[in-house]
Amino acid sequence: MAGEAGKARTVLLATEKAFAAAAVAKIEAVTSAAGYTLKRLENYKSKAELLAAVADADAMIIRSDKVDQAVLDAASKLKIVVRAGAGYDNVDLKACEGKGVVAMNTPGQNANAVAEMVFGMMITSARNNYDGTSGFELVNRSIAFYGFGAVARAVHKLAHGFGMKSFAYDPYIPADKIKEMGATPVDSVAGLFEHQYVSLHVPLTDETKSSINKALLQKMPKGGTLINTARCEVVHDADMIEVLKTRSDFCYLCDVAPDDKEAKDAMKAAVGDKYGKRLIFTAKKMGAQTLEANDNCGVAAASQIVGFFEKGETRFSLKA
Amino acid sequence: MAGEAGKARTVLLATEKAFAAAAVAKIEAVTSAAGYTLKRLENYKSKAELLAAVADADAMIIRSDKVDQAVLDAASKLKIVVRAGAGYDNVDLKACEGKGVVAMNTPGQNANAVAEMVFGMMITSARNNYDGTSGFELVNRSIAFYGFGAVARAVHKLAHGFGMKSFAYDPYIPADKIKEMGATPVDSVAGLFEHQYVSLHVPLTDETKSSINKALLQKMPKGGTLINTARCEVVHDADMIEVLKTRSDFCYLCDVAPDDKEAKDAMKAAVGDKYGKRLIFTAKKMGAQTLEANDNCGVAAASQIVGFFEKGETRFSLKA
Repeated sequence: MAGEAGKARTVLLATEKAFAAAAVAKIEAVTSAAGYTLKRLENYKSKAELLAAVADADAMIIRSDKVDQAVLDAASKLKIVVRAGAGYDNVDLKACEGKGVVAMNTPGQNANAVAEMVFGMMITSARNNYDGTSGFELVNRSIAFYGFGAVARAVHKLAHGFGMKSFAYDPYIPADKIKEMGATPVDSVAGLFEHQYVSLHVPLTDETKSSINKALLQKMPKGGTLINTARCEVVHDADMIEVLKTRSDFCYLCDVAPDDKEAKDAMKAAVGDKYGKRLIFTAKKMGAQTLEANDNCGVAAASQIVGFFEKGETRFSLKA
Repeated sequence: MAGEAGKARTVLLATEKAFAAAAVAKIEAVTSAAGYTLKRLENYKSKAELLAAVADADAMIIRSDKVDQAVLDAASKLKIVVRAGAGYDNVDLKACEGKGVVAMNTPGQNANAVAEMVFGMMITSARNNYDGTSGFELVNRSIAFYGFGAVARAVHKLAHGFGMKSFAYDPYIPADKIKEMGATPVDSVAGLFEHQYVSLHVPLTDETKSSINKALLQKMPKGGTLINTARCEVVHDADMIEVLKTRSDFCYLCDVAPDDKEAKDAMKAAVGDKYGKRLIFTAKKMGAQTLEANDNCGVAAASQIVGFFEKGETRFSLKA
């Protein structure tokens, strides 16, 4: 457990790729307010530096920095390590568990980053990648969310600003709660696909894998556009290829192409010279990759450390 | 003048390139409500068809259709011709005046079309044209409008949805009016350039031509981005080339490249492989080119015709 509250602590900020100075200042404001010392190891070049620096750390904030058995062995006082960001492949959770170190990530800090990119891709598509031809506007059009978590709600907020109508289905959020948040609840996944835009915000699970199939996509009205900033594996590749081939009005906007190069190339081939208009793939998954999202994650990490020591909060702790 | 109100009238919808069916239905709803007959000559192939069709028309709605002396001579009952759109190079205003025919256009109907495209270009630039690298968000950033007419206000409305801060200077709109519309008034053109984004919404005049020069551009803070959906001639080409060359953070997002091919190529060369990120040119001027803007213009044209006959309204009449 966290141990007593109100004690002086050392929080090591270990970032091979440093946060922006403004973000560090915000992180330090949080740790200072709690009476903790922020110790900075930024842009370090060797593992040895990290091993030396963790020796007196009670807590650690990291980014893509690797926390493995060696780091944990060198960190005799460490109680908590927080990955400032969502992905945590770089943290050896089993080793943390073995050492009694709590590991956390900072989910939900990148919602607006993703939401803004969704609109960039939607407008780029609606305006034919700025090729000089006539396009259409988003105002008054419908967008339906499969999953209505933090990211979907951030997209919804922007959609409202554009004068769009929002619909949502989330198996874990009751209809009246969705209504309260300003979207019209839809009572099935299939019901979402009656709207021009469908935006996916579900995790990749056995149930969602390849679940966005031809039957759903074919239901979409003219100009039907699937937006996928979740995981490309949620979409049934072969069905998507077929729909892109047979429906010249259909669009797919996806934050990163399928890993399967053959599927990716087949999707591109299906739209031909409309790539960048009917079909947009980011070069690497990047929806969450902004200066602001990174800053938010750093501050969230510091706050979670303070909450852990002072109040025993473990909301975002990760299981091995 | 318009003649008496409450009379039956024939409105000729003469469109070589027809409106979408939904737009025509909306236009007809306006004319029917006034007791007028909408006569449709759509997708016509020869001038002879047009000359025959205008013979009994009291009013005409056109798009890029040419209204010249021959058309006016064939239209003995014509009182008003409305170009559904902003540009009116296709209407011979002198000939209209000679025949006592009022000519109008329908300005301001494309404001949202332009505004949405502005955000598409801003996000595409902020997110490095989706190349997989980390970008930044628009939230909390500042945008300053040079000119605060219909288009600027539509951009401002979307900016508000993105959580941006708006500033504006317009020599014809008093500061308190700007404040009332939700932007912070700025008291000089130079003052606008203290903000990260500056969006141009001024007409091309002797005064504005080449007025956006190095002195102004160099004042812009880090990440300074000029957005030009007005006229590219407002920007001083040589100065822009120099700023793009010397400031690697500077961006220019422009609805259509300069006519001067040499200037255009020099701007592209200045940013190198950052074209599409730091510098975006549309292939043809297209900010106003959307389905919705065109529809809006058609309905506005019909409404202006009714207002003219029934109430003698001549607000958007054009001078030869």
